[in-house]
Amino acid sequence: MGLQDKAYTLRNCKAVLVDSETVKLNVNVVIERGVIRAVGKESEGDEIDCSGLVVLPGLVNAHTHSAMIALRGYSDDKELRQWLSDVWAFERTFPRQLMKLSTEVAVLEMLERGTTAFVDMYFNPEDVREMTEKYGIRAQAGFTFLDSMFDPSEVERLQRGLRGTELFTPIINVHSVYSVSRETLKLAFELSRELNQRLQIHASETRGEVFYTKKNFGLFPVEFLIKEGLPEGSQLVHLGWIASWELDLLKNHHATYCPTSSMKLATAGAFPLYEAIRRGVNVSLGTDGPASNNSLDMFREMKNAVLQQRHNYWDARVTAKDAFRSATTGGYRLLGLKGGKVAQGYVADLVLLDADELYPFSPERLVSHVVYYTTGEAVKKLIVSGKIIEKETIRREKSRLVNEINESLSSLSYK
Amino acid sequence: MGLQDKAYTLRNCKAVLVDSETVKLNVNVVIERGVIRAVGKESEGDEIDCSGLVVLPGLVNAHTHSAMIALRGYSDDKELRQWLSDVWAFERTFPRQLMKLSTEVAVLEMLERGTTAFVDMYFNPEDVREMTEKYGIRAQAGFTFLDSMFDPSEVERLQRGLRGTELFTPIINVHSVYSVSRETLKLAFELSRELNQRLQIHASETRGEVFYTKKNFGLFPVEFLIKEGLPEGSQLVHLGWIASWELDLLKNHHATYCPTSSMKLATAGAFPLYEAIRRGVNVSLGTDGPASNNSLDMFREMKNAVLQQRHNYWDARVTAKDAFRSATTGGYRLLGLKGGKVAQGYVADLVLLDADELYPFSPERLVSHVVYYTTGEAVKKLIVSGKIIEKETIRREKSRLVNEINESLSSLSYK
Repeated sequence: MGLQDKAYTLRNCKAVLVDSETVKLNVNVVIERGVIRAVGKESEGDEIDCSGLVVLPGLVNAHTHSAMIALRGYSDDKELRQWLSDVWAFERTFPRQLMKLSTEVAVLEMLERGTTAFVDMYFNPEDVREMTEKYGIRAQAGFTFLDSMFDPSEVERLQRGLRGTELFTPIINVHSVYSVSRETLKLAFELSRELNQRLQIHASETRGEVFYTKKNFGLFPVEFLIKEGLPEGSQLVHLGWIASWELDLLKNHHATYCPTSSMKLATAGAFPLYEAIRRGVNVSLGTDGPASNNSLDMFREMKNAVLQQRHNYWDARVTAKDAFRSATTGGYRLLGLKGGKVAQGYVADLVLLDADELYPFSPERLVSHVVYYTTGEAVKKLIVSGKIIEKETIRREKSRLVNEINESLSSLSYK
Repeated sequence: MGLQDKAYTLRNCKAVLVDSETVKLNVNVVIERGVIRAVGKESEGDEIDCSGLVVLPGLVNAHTHSAMIALRGYSDDKELRQWLSDVWAFERTFPRQLMKLSTEVAVLEMLERGTTAFVDMYFNPEDVREMTEKYGIRAQAGFTFLDSMFDPSEVERLQRGLRGTELFTPIINVHSVYSVSRETLKLAFELSRELNQRLQIHASETRGEVFYTKKNFGLFPVEFLIKEGLPEGSQLVHLGWIASWELDLLKNHHATYCPTSSMKLATAGAFPLYEAIRRGVNVSLGTDGPASNNSLDMFREMKNAVLQQRHNYWDARVTAKDAFRSATTGGYRLLGLKGGKVAQGYVADLVLLDADELYPFSPERLVSHVVYYTTGEAVKKLIVSGKIIEKETIRREKSRLVNEINESLSSLSYK
């Protein structure tokens, strides 16, 4: 795309949602070499008319398992433990080509709905890297330590060979404390430190997990991870059953909240979002995988975060702005990038929505419409690292691949 | 639309979701005079190629306040009591023309997203009737007893003048036990019996309401309504705080569940869906108004029903099929119509979805995709009482009206 390197201008944007607090009307956004140079009256280079569009920061899907598109709708109406058993049975014979195809469709689906970056936990990070090159999305992914499925030394070997690029960053994935041995956990921690790659792990997702670590190690899951030497800056996902005093252990780590999946799997836990934010924990939002959500739409996820919080805690303290910040600034902080705002010096990762779909239109109602009303349906274009991606292009490509995925699945015995 | 009266055929539908249990592949659906004549190999009259479409029964939005589109995003981050106080302040000066315009946009938005019929509680039922004629959606609506806003005898007078049509049925709306006097309640009950119009009332929505009836009448809200002589076949909405023993009082009534709104308003109650179904209560689903949801998309509502149930009750007993039946057969039973299935003799109220958007495609996964994955975004056409409505037509019309609503609101002081 020729526009990528030289400066260009999103001209006369109907509104720019700079961050959760600020809306600018009828301004230009100047982008150069993947970074926002100005938001205001300035214009430089080619101009793109944005008078019918609302500009937001890109949304970060901070936790998913993209290849599980093939498993969407395969096992739904079960609690986590039984669901995981169904899923693992499928995964033991997951055809390699279908896994790649699923990741590709997931990437297109995320782009189509406004996700500019995602963090993936699965077994095919090279496919994820390939998709970042092919489609221009940002991603972090790595091989996953999961003892019942993979030899830990093999995971280590593969991970050592995984290289990063501008858009792709390797991370160390550990499924959970209950699915790896203490030795595997130590190995992953050491690898994370040695390679300077962030560690991501599911933690405190269920009561069963809390029971497991209490019984075996005398500690709560987060407490246990910290005591075992969790590398600084690790990403703990779910935390629906974290003890309130454990929140203070997260100061130097990142928390990722996946409200929809926790509700659908009846884990009954609700990450204490309000408390976590108040105590300064960096919180991001994730859809979790398409087999447990089953959507990858971060707009829906923002709404569901507020819904679960309000229902669980019997008050309206968590607001649309909290959800929005978690999906934007919280996500980019997790990624280690200056992003999540439409402001000078921030990475040019943006979502452009059809302004006609955000009604009644008023600057005061914009965050509300983004969180509570609209979905990825309203996305018209995305920009990732300054590169423009048109929704229609994504849709066409996805349509072709969906046919392939359908054919591929119909030849398997899984219904 | 010329096709309406003579028979026509939806030819070679990729899949027909007959009901929650049955999927038929590659069949025709023959429609004549608003009724489904056959689902199978038969063909009659003009043929419409449906090889890329999945056919479902129409979705019934069993409870909304359509005119509140103007209030979408106006007051979000508050609990019910404060929210209601904000909303009532707006409504006291709600311009009549804006109210009508809001209802019109809401009707288009519902059609666009697969709602073939809705039940409305507001102050402008004649506007609703006009929209049923203009756009072909089914609706039930009536003037609303709400003592702080309207003189009950005036509501009675207006209601007596409200006439039904093929698509529009008048109902008696009562806001709640806490917002009308006991005399108004009696008046509404008598009017419902005399005019043979179903009564709709919000009930057991909050702890505050339970406290109110207990304190003033010594009874729980549903118990109180029954003791006061609630007409048979009434519609009780919300019921988040219904006592389990009160469920048995609903045998001859209808329950409507609005999960999203109850979560967003932090009412903390969760209608006991599993128990209600098991005890034979007819359950329908509603989005509630666009100021408290803020979406009118029944696909999202089905998913949120499952999510709230599973989170609240710590198990996965409520399934996608329960949500689907509530939105289809439960809704049509409320309306008093033989509808909610794609089968011979049922009303031809159908939703046609883009099959490419339901992936991976398999008959076994169809209900899951409809409930957990897709949204109204996948709707391509609707059929109401045999009349075909194209999504693109709706969108064009809506786009024009949204501009009007934006202009109208910008001239008011409400932000």
